[in-house]
Amino acid sequence: MAHINVPEGVPGIRSLVLFRPETGKPLYELAQVLLRGNASTLSGAERELIATYVSYRNQCGFCMNSHAAASRCLFGDERFKVDEVLQNLEQSSVSPRLKALLHIAGKVQVLGKEVQQEDIDAARAEGATDKEIHDTVLIAAAFSMFNRYVDGLASLTPTEPEVYEAMGERMAKGYILPGK
Amino acid sequence: MAHINVPEGVPGIRSLVLFRPETGKPLYELAQVLLRGNASTLSGAERELIATYVSYRNQCGFCMNSHAAASRCLFGDERFKVDEVLQNLEQSSVSPRLKALLHIAGKVQVLGKEVQQEDIDAARAEGATDKEIHDTVLIAAAFSMFNRYVDGLASLTPTEPEVYEAMGERMAKGYILPGK
Repeated sequence: MAHINVPEGVPGIRSLVLFRPETGKPLYELAQVLLRGNASTLSGAERELIATYVSYRNQCGFCMNSHAAASRCLFGDERFKVDEVLQNLEQSSVSPRLKALLHIAGKVQVLGKEVQQEDIDAARAEGATDKEIHDTVLIAAAFSMFNRYVDGLASLTPTEPEVYEAMGERMAKGYILPGK
Repeated sequence: MAHINVPEGVPGIRSLVLFRPETGKPLYELAQVLLRGNASTLSGAERELIATYVSYRNQCGFCMNSHAAASRCLFGDERFKVDEVLQNLEQSSVSPRLKALLHIAGKVQVLGKEVQQEDIDAARAEGATDKEIHDTVLIAAAFSMFNRYVDGLASLTPTEPEVYEAMGERMAKGYILPGK
């Protein structure tokens, strides 16, 4: 049971934003612009994979499973890449550029100051732009928030894989604040 | 120097939201509603103190010094409480309710799952409401993001105390996205 009196049976962050829509609004807007906005040159699938990787490292089952499902949905035929990264980032078949960005995201998950100039240089050497580095750091930082929000209030975490599959398909279309 | 090409001489998060205003907008809206919104029964000074405490634990000098200055400004005659908490939370003169909430914030700073039912019960026993517990967890989670964003991109951290004092006075009035 959640630590506070949220609507019953509603999973994860949805229950929290129904409890407090005033803060839910900018949280959903942030997810939408950061993970779906078309000002980014990272694909939606790549951005969802960064979110998944950080949630995995923070042991947040709800965020990891739901964003992994969204990433698989957006990767389409290359959906196997999501599981490759979760099993072994270094040996995965994602591009060297995405691998270098995921490496930065892993540092941010620990703490901001962990990111060193050499990590940035390595990403640039693989063709990453300033905006891609910015977005990677902000996605990793934002999921350091979302993971703590969801788990810190012990919100409902479904266990059935098919629940996440349906959630991922919905999330792939975008993030819209749920109504009461 | 920052890791990406942000406007020179602009400190902390301001430089990052000038670089990427699309994500800056929901970030500033979140700060405004969470730290200044009047749906909360925690005072602005108390909310800024939670933000300061988390930033201190995350060793984020920019966020710690700026939000400490905002909290001191809002506490007025009781501004000494900010330094008391940073020196020794248990021995500080803040109310037992705020102490219990700061204890929860400290757990969230580590990871969401660290928050135990007994931490929630202890806050409730001191009169904390569900909304206050919610807002405490979300402030702690949000600063786990802001701290990583600011330090992960190595944004400019001023060293002069008077810079933070002026910043705190401006922040006490509210969070408005800076224009280009």
